[in-house]
Amino acid sequence: MPSPPIVLTTDFGLSDPYVGVMKGVILRINPNAPLIDLTHLIQPQDVRHASFLLGTSHGFFPQGSIHVAVVDPGVGTARRPLLLETPTARFVAPDNGLLSFVVAEHLDAPPELPGRISVPLGLSAYHLTNSDYWRQPLSHTFHGRDVFAPVAAHLSLGVPPSSMGSLANDMVWLPIQRPLAVGNSLSGEVVYADHFGNLVTNVPGDLLTDNGKVEVQIADRTIYGLSETFHGGHADTSDTTNLIALVGSLGYLEIAVPDGNAAAALGAGPGAAVSVDFS
Amino acid sequence: MPSPPIVLTTDFGLSDPYVGVMKGVILRINPNAPLIDLTHLIQPQDVRHASFLLGTSHGFFPQGSIHVAVVDPGVGTARRPLLLETPTARFVAPDNGLLSFVVAEHLDAPPELPGRISVPLGLSAYHLTNSDYWRQPLSHTFHGRDVFAPVAAHLSLGVPPSSMGSLANDMVWLPIQRPLAVGNSLSGEVVYADHFGNLVTNVPGDLLTDNGKVEVQIADRTIYGLSETFHGGHADTSDTTNLIALVGSLGYLEIAVPDGNAAAALGAGPGAAVSVDFS
Amino acid sequence: MPSPPIVLTTDFGLSDPYVGVMKGVILRINPNAPLIDLTHLIQPQDVRHASFLLGTSHGFFPQGSIHVAVVDPGVGTARRPLLLETPTARFVAPDNGLLSFVVAEHLDAPPELPGRISVPLGLSAYHLTNSDYWRQPLSHTFHGRDVFAPVAAHLSLGVPPSSMGSLANDMVWLPIQRPLAVGNSLSGEVVYADHFGNLVTNVPGDLLTDNGKVEVQIADRTIYGLSETFHGGHADTSDTTNLIALVGSLGYLEIAVPDGNAAAALGAGPGAAVSVDFS
Repeated sequence: MPSPPIVLTTDFGLSDPYVGVMKGVILRINPNAPLIDLTHLIQPQDVRHASFLLGTSHGFFPQGSIHVAVVDPGVGTARRPLLLETPTARFVAPDNGLLSFVVAEHLDAPPELPGRISVPLGLSAYHLTNSDYWRQPLSHTFHGRDVFAPVAAHLSLGVPPSSMGSLANDMVWLPIQRPLAVGNSLSGEVVYADHFGNLVTNVPGDLLTDNGKVEVQIADRTIYGLSETFHGGHADTSDTTNLIALVGSLGYLEIAVPDGNAAAALGAGPGAAVSVDFS
Repeated sequence: MPSPPIVLTTDFGLSDPYVGVMKGVILRINPNAPLIDLTHLIQPQDVRHASFLLGTSHGFFPQGSIHVAVVDPGVGTARRPLLLETPTARFVAPDNGLLSFVVAEHLDAPPELPGRISVPLGLSAYHLTNSDYWRQPLSHTFHGRDVFAPVAAHLSLGVPPSSMGSLANDMVWLPIQRPLAVGNSLSGEVVYADHFGNLVTNVPGDLLTDNGKVEVQIADRTIYGLSETFHGGHADTSDTTNLIALVGSLGYLEIAVPDGNAAAALGAGPGAAVSVDFS
Repeated sequence: MPSPPIVLTTDFGLSDPYVGVMKGVILRINPNAPLIDLTHLIQPQDVRHASFLLGTSHGFFPQGSIHVAVVDPGVGTARRPLLLETPTARFVAPDNGLLSFVVAEHLDAPPELPGRISVPLGLSAYHLTNSDYWRQPLSHTFHGRDVFAPVAAHLSLGVPPSSMGSLANDMVWLPIQRPLAVGNSLSGEVVYADHFGNLVTNVPGDLLTDNGKVEVQIADRTIYGLSETFHGGHADTSDTTNLIALVGSLGYLEIAVPDGNAAAALGAGPGAAVSVDFS
């Protein structure tokens, strides 16, 4: 029976030994743990971005995968280390909102404002308190190495979460802005620009009909209709940059330029306003 | 019996979750597949560069390795997903020329112009058509995740290619420019600059004699003779940048500066003309 | 019994196939070797930086781990390929000083000047001379692929070091500058800036008392006392950039800006002078 994979998501970058050292700590405890990188290039301290990527990505991993997510501006302070169990995965992360997008799937009405929320039914959260499962001596500045990595490794060996901490009733909530419905339109925003310059928005694809009547507005430009591929036929032909809109592989509305870079073409990035009009 | 490694080559970059998600999809199907990254920093949509790297690198991997190569500007259009079997390896990739450099090893006279070629004797190509082996629902924009990754995973478990598609007779051909022989000289070009600034050319090392009589010209500079190492004794001593020419580890002529960066020193990159004169 | 992990540290970058190809070569010999990247973004040819990272990181990996470290400006010249055994790990690297920081742990009085040192008691060094364990044909420019990777793979399978080379009595020594003690102060320097802009110095944390009476000077700024976390309470409140000093996770004094970038705030990097005054 193979070990579940341990999937790492951090803002540690790739030039320092931090990620490698976390893997070393894991392999000291479970030499057979498969180790996968989701990304280590989250913008430093950008908890919200990490939350979005983790929330939209974890469903593609095997049942029972263990996600270690460390974007942790409050490391060494009173913020709690957390373990969250869902029906399909386990998450080890600081309690700073990083797991909000994962939790949102289990909420009927996600709160619009930051704060604390009760752990939804069907999920279990643990406040990691049992230092027997941590690396010693504990650094005050690198809990990724000394708390989260070893806890994930022990978890992958079958140690029950209840041995590693106490049940938590609530957790920090950091909402991803959801688009506002105003009459016949949705008012959303760009969440991030990917490596290709595609602008990923917070507009869920299942709110969009693909009947070709949708208009998307961004940076004073209008895109008529949704494309199905990056070479779709719905591009605004009056628009020399050939912008298109489509539901991307993460399930959200994206703005793209076929064989080009929409972020560069529009000078737009995270936070840029996007509206969708249904005619 | 361990699973063959699955080797990933893409232009997806390292900041998005795309590569990690492909690995998650593979591990859902084959939890024991060893996963290796060749590189994910192919320039976006640069099929030719990916073809060169894959062609010069695959021979270093274990017999039976499965290469997943995704540089796929035509994703979601009519371009075919392909599986290619050679005597030593398997390749899963879009049919857009990405496998040309691999196939060229098996051709007596590789065509000089882009187009289509017949699959050479000794190789088998399959048009991947059986969606039972794909992830569902199929995204129109991310076949790396939904077609190529799962097909590679099933292949690593021993599913025969013939179950996953139908034999293809031809495939897209995208030639890497070969150097022209003109009298006593070869006229070639730089294919790419590596991380050290070494300029890798399209001049195969086996066309060069190492008798010290070779002259290499690039960017109005002349390099006399070939060096054996990056500290070779054949550098042009009248040249303050200390340019050298040598047959690099990929088997092609490279231009380098010992402990320096030839690309920066010459302001040269892909496409720059290189000529080799045999005296 | 699982294979020991093979941990790779290079200056090869991530855009070329060099690292992937080394892994391919290893898996051809030992298909079960777990492969871990420490980092491949050492600055080109920066042996000293690699030495520091390897020295401060290897202790976090499993007993018996095999480290392959390739920052090798002298590749192809007379510099020797080396295998070093310590009580806890094995290292395969060029004999150019890259292992100095690892060796320094075993020296009572590390020399202050570069040169050669005797291999310390308790360690064994081997000059790798047996080409039966190398890849053939041997490239003159890529011993990472053709010497170090295959030697590490054979080592992971249990081949004794004595079969692969002859005992070496000495090795190249490249000291990391140590801080100078002058009266009541230590005079050190920045070794490198990490991904977050934290300035890691050469001042070992165990030389610092955490009694709050320490003053750290860098770039004409004074930091009063040590913080315990990146949100410590000892920041110089007269300083608008909110600089702090703390013992970082590698065990050395670091200069940081909470939720900010100290390297950018100070315009400081490797080599910048740092002094610590004990009052």
